[in-house]
Amino acid sequence: MPDRHEISRYFQHLQDDICRQLSAADGCEFREDSWERPGGGGGRARVVSGNDIEKGGVNYSAVHGELSAAAAASLQAEAGQTTFYATGVSIVLHPRNVHVPIIHMNVRYFELEGGRNWFGGGIDLTPHYVVPGQATWFHRQLQATCDRFDTAYYPRFKEWADDYFYLPHREETRGVGGIFFDRLEPATEGKTKRELFDFTAAVGETFAPTYLHLLGLNKDKPVTEAERNWQRLRRGRYVEFNLVWDRGTKFGLTTNGRAESILMSLPPLAGWEYDHRPDPGSREAETLTYLRKGIDW
Amino acid sequence: MPDRHEISRYFQHLQDDICRQLSAADGCEFREDSWERPGGGGGRARVVSGNDIEKGGVNYSAVHGELSAAAAASLQAEAGQTTFYATGVSIVLHPRNVHVPIIHMNVRYFELEGGRNWFGGGIDLTPHYVVPGQATWFHRQLQATCDRFDTAYYPRFKEWADDYFYLPHREETRGVGGIFFDRLEPATEGKTKRELFDFTAAVGETFAPTYLHLLGLNKDKPVTEAERNWQRLRRGRYVEFNLVWDRGTKFGLTTNGRAESILMSLPPLAGWEYDHRPDPGSREAETLTYLRKGIDW
Repeated sequence: MPDRHEISRYFQHLQDDICRQLSAADGCEFREDSWERPGGGGGRARVVSGNDIEKGGVNYSAVHGELSAAAAASLQAEAGQTTFYATGVSIVLHPRNVHVPIIHMNVRYFELEGGRNWFGGGIDLTPHYVVPGQATWFHRQLQATCDRFDTAYYPRFKEWADDYFYLPHREETRGVGGIFFDRLEPATEGKTKRELFDFTAAVGETFAPTYLHLLGLNKDKPVTEAERNWQRLRRGRYVEFNLVWDRGTKFGLTTNGRAESILMSLPPLAGWEYDHRPDPGSREAETLTYLRKGIDW
Repeated sequence: MPDRHEISRYFQHLQDDICRQLSAADGCEFREDSWERPGGGGGRARVVSGNDIEKGGVNYSAVHGELSAAAAASLQAEAGQTTFYATGVSIVLHPRNVHVPIIHMNVRYFELEGGRNWFGGGIDLTPHYVVPGQATWFHRQLQATCDRFDTAYYPRFKEWADDYFYLPHREETRGVGGIFFDRLEPATEGKTKRELFDFTAAVGETFAPTYLHLLGLNKDKPVTEAERNWQRLRRGRYVEFNLVWDRGTKFGLTTNGRAESILMSLPPLAGWEYDHRPDPGSREAETLTYLRKGIDW
């Protein structure tokens, strides 16, 4: 049975491997910033401002300690479960070229005192301009990974992503979704811990080749000033989702997490215009029609 | 005793008056956007992209209806208090020139079913570069307005602003503060409703001359590219405060408020850099030393 040491060591290697692949493709170097958590543990932030990736972060962490009251409530911990261990890799990449989508990936493992433990994670895509063929291709990659473990996973985790990456105040999904899963426990999933770990690892390994394919397809497309403006507005929505609705971000910021690591997800530049509405029939207007739940990509 | 009609009419006139003063100074025209609230009432959003004001909103609203369960809990409404009436004026101005501060003003009146009612409001200033003499002058204007009504107001409401406009995850105040007050009720304040209304109105009328003085002092100062970058980063912090910590914003967005009016407060363009630290001894570093509670301006 994989223990926390094996899992966190794997996540470290995953961070290394992803950074290596992104560096090779982009020609960029990551800057590493190791940090310690006052309550226990720490992490390695890796940040980049590259050629095709304008602002990106690939963060690894392994932290442990006492659960705060807020954290215990949020995790529905039982009495006596006062300490935790958490490790994971979290990534957000903001590309320079508006035709390359923003991407987010997270894989994580959590242990509560007394042995309860679970996996979580996912990958989701936020194109500034939705290209249906590319969104479909992206979903097929995720589905192929899921299907290797359980054919019920993709439909279940795809729906979960639609529900999670949603901005109620805009009545929009953040992007074209992907997969999202949380609290996968051996007991309730009918899987071994090894199987859940292997699945989570496979999601992590799906990230780099999938994104690099989309990057390669789009990174050299010409960009107009109007398209750049649209990119800033879509990045504004990304900020709104992360700061208003993302449970992980809110949890981190309100429980004294490391702000710079949590906010690595924010874009280099984002814009807001009052009541912006794209011209009917424009590619921007078309993109908005795809930002809804339940599309069968 | 001023009733809701008198108060909301006054707030409409205040919106008109402030827009007139800002238009005259800036040479800009406001665009008006009237809206209705499905549950009752509506408002007049006035937005501007002017010469010195890059993005601004002066919003008037008067809404009423059934309290949602979330709203009732947040307002500590008692059983039977299921309807509400709320009216106010809310302003945020983002100037073009980095040497002009961002400003926020709000005055509001709230009624719960059964007659309980209160006033709230305030003005606070967020300079991108803190100029101590200007921050002091700003606070003296607010103090002079407060002192006309009660000499206990300024110290009390200044401290309230320090506590309210605070980003715990950055250990920073949003700016140099100002005054903030909420739930001023005749019964608990030992004032008449007329006195509380007059005070709230006086705060509203303090806004335009105070801001226009600061605008005039700074709007033609030269700006470097490095200063413009700093402005984007400080605007990023403004976004973080509003989306993560501002109770009004969160309340509005999570209770189906009008997103475009609520988010009028966001800047036209904001930036984030990983772990940005200004050079020691720079004006940017000096500004950060002023972003803390309890400064006796």
